[in-house]
Amino acid sequence: MKNVNKNSDPKRKKKYESPDSLTSVGWTEPHVITLADESNPLLLDCGEELAPISVEYEMYGEMNQNKDNVILLLHALSGDAHAAGWDKKALEMGRSWRVDRPGWWDAMIGPGKALDTNKYCIICSNVLGSCYGTTGPASIDPETGVPYGLTFPIVTVGDWVRLQERLVSYLGIEKLYAVIGGSLGGQQALEWSLAYPDRVERAVILASSARLSAQGLAFNAVARNSILNDTNFNGGNYYDGDQPAQGLAIARMLGHITYLSETAMRDKFGRRYRKNGNRPGFHLGVDFEVESYLEYQGQSFVSRFDANSYLYITRAMDYYDAADRGGGDLDRACKNARARFLLISFSSDWLYTPEQTKELAFALYRTKKDVSYVEIPSTYGHDAFLLEVDEITPLISKFLKGDTNHGI
Amino acid sequence: MKNVNKNSDPKRKKKYESPDSLTSVGWTEPHVITLADESNPLLLDCGEELAPISVEYEMYGEMNQNKDNVILLLHALSGDAHAAGWDKKALEMGRSWRVDRPGWWDAMIGPGKALDTNKYCIICSNVLGSCYGTTGPASIDPETGVPYGLTFPIVTVGDWVRLQERLVSYLGIEKLYAVIGGSLGGQQALEWSLAYPDRVERAVILASSARLSAQGLAFNAVARNSILNDTNFNGGNYYDGDQPAQGLAIARMLGHITYLSETAMRDKFGRRYRKNGNRPGFHLGVDFEVESYLEYQGQSFVSRFDANSYLYITRAMDYYDAADRGGGDLDRACKNARARFLLISFSSDWLYTPEQTKELAFALYRTKKDVSYVEIPSTYGHDAFLLEVDEITPLISKFLKGDTNHGI
Repeated sequence: MKNVNKNSDPKRKKKYESPDSLTSVGWTEPHVITLADESNPLLLDCGEELAPISVEYEMYGEMNQNKDNVILLLHALSGDAHAAGWDKKALEMGRSWRVDRPGWWDAMIGPGKALDTNKYCIICSNVLGSCYGTTGPASIDPETGVPYGLTFPIVTVGDWVRLQERLVSYLGIEKLYAVIGGSLGGQQALEWSLAYPDRVERAVILASSARLSAQGLAFNAVARNSILNDTNFNGGNYYDGDQPAQGLAIARMLGHITYLSETAMRDKFGRRYRKNGNRPGFHLGVDFEVESYLEYQGQSFVSRFDANSYLYITRAMDYYDAADRGGGDLDRACKNARARFLLISFSSDWLYTPEQTKELAFALYRTKKDVSYVEIPSTYGHDAFLLEVDEITPLISKFLKGDTNHGI
Repeated sequence: MKNVNKNSDPKRKKKYESPDSLTSVGWTEPHVITLADESNPLLLDCGEELAPISVEYEMYGEMNQNKDNVILLLHALSGDAHAAGWDKKALEMGRSWRVDRPGWWDAMIGPGKALDTNKYCIICSNVLGSCYGTTGPASIDPETGVPYGLTFPIVTVGDWVRLQERLVSYLGIEKLYAVIGGSLGGQQALEWSLAYPDRVERAVILASSARLSAQGLAFNAVARNSILNDTNFNGGNYYDGDQPAQGLAIARMLGHITYLSETAMRDKFGRRYRKNGNRPGFHLGVDFEVESYLEYQGQSFVSRFDANSYLYITRAMDYYDAADRGGGDLDRACKNARARFLLISFSSDWLYTPEQTKELAFALYRTKKDVSYVEIPSTYGHDAFLLEVDEITPLISKFLKGDTNHGI
């Protein structure tokens, strides 16, 4: 068995670029804007109207005069608007996890990088229902004066995209140069190209598909049950007491299993024990390295995420099915799209598998869309869309420049 | 997407054979025997001595005069000694889940079946730490007069096999005609062949391997955390109150995801909704068919299993590594084995993958053991060892008769 120490893995232990680096976007500040109020509520897929809605977003690079150089970046389940650079007010705003690391796709965004801020203006906004500045279950319901909790309406990927459209329109952008996202972000990019075909020139969809698999639905169900079963959950009304931290931590542990490939887990941890001269400690607590890793991932997540948001966002992930726009027929759903597509999958991704990405690629191909599909060999599993920077950078750079990459 | 109704799946909805059928072992009764007492405690791998230990076992078919026709069958995580036939006293003993179905491998055991009770005497005993008649955490600790709970010592596959050896010796059996098991049962069969090489003639190992993968360890860690985090868990002392039912149910839900292949989940459930004209219900509860399936599996499990036993047995599953007998070298560990081996894997099993079974097969092959390895194409995932009866019956029948099946 190959015993690669996790600290020796260059892609995971990449040194962060300093905010002063010439290829960093530097210090960033979030913007917050109200995009729905009583006079203009957002009509949700569930039938409810929601207002007010505040949206947090960040921008990197300058919009040109025609406002036709804008890339809308869409984040995944646990992501936020802070995609690049260093958050200037992180400490002040109590977002301690942002203090010692840059945004979640920093390696891809900046002067000269794949999303080149010398050319493009990149916008990333936090999704509805999240806990990073956009209205969500932890926000105060103006009607009651207390946090929504589970009275927050069920939101969908479609709702997110309609809200993003308000932001884009508010900023005076008629047509997006590109929409880009990985995982659940990729599904938002897809939804953009189907919901607003005339406003999307290019769509880059990574580690994603038209819909979550039955197995993915099953994992989300277990994760949510773990939160709902936490002693502190209290029907979602926990904001004035202890969070359902352990339930959320378990949900996150499970998530991480699905983000890593079996190979990556074997290479990183194998069956190594933490102590005791690599022998069993004969107890029920954390004994294997892989348990320690999951424990760490779970615990560090609860300090930065809200359990209710986890419930709502995984549900949005469950409900999304691009084929719904075609009455269940994915080809029919794809017909109206007008964007050029780049679809990228990763060989060891078993959450959104290459087969699933390919299914979408073929639907676009059959409906005569301009689509390139690339499967990147990687052992990183679903996480690859965050880690395989060297592999995806030339593909995305070229695609954004207008060059075709590959056929299917 | 193929929409196979789960009720139309013949392998899952096979009609149970009646106890009066000529190929059923008929009505069965468990035996219970004390195999360790104060004068003769069982020394466990963790260093502790345990006594008293009662063991529940069942026998099907007759032992011949030389007692050389005995097959020891080893059960998996949630299994028990009741492997075949109909439990006569199930109702009386409050084991309601045994009333309307036969033992867990009934399709394989009986007159004329793969484990032919006209020829062989099949013995199956419940493992130490379980909750089906053998001493475990729910048993009364004679020193305190209350259930052990988490004071029960950590047990291992090695401990189980040493206890089984006491049973086999008590029954006067010198050499087992065969040891057979699937999953965690397969690891016991392997351990038998390594710990007691002179007492095992044949070993049949299904859907199993020399050790659990890092990913398997990770799933078990999440499952245990879910139990430990249940409001009712109370440090394992819940026997006079409510069980940590929901935590155990979640653990079981997660288990079932790993028992089914992604293909099987897609074919059985796809993304179908339960109600609402196959459209989303816009809530956080059970909405998809696959959620309903997992919910059912979880809830039906808690009525028949003990949460502490789940903790202990999954830990035994974690700790087992056949290579430990060779100082970490699997080839060296296999050297002393003298049994003939039949290893069977299933193509879509992702808990104990064909690659992992093959790794064991090659270690046995390199150390010049008599080993046959067969990978059966199946979409049933890990569950296949319980379901692919028609495929495994001829392989096992022939192997037990002494015929060689295939090479590696």
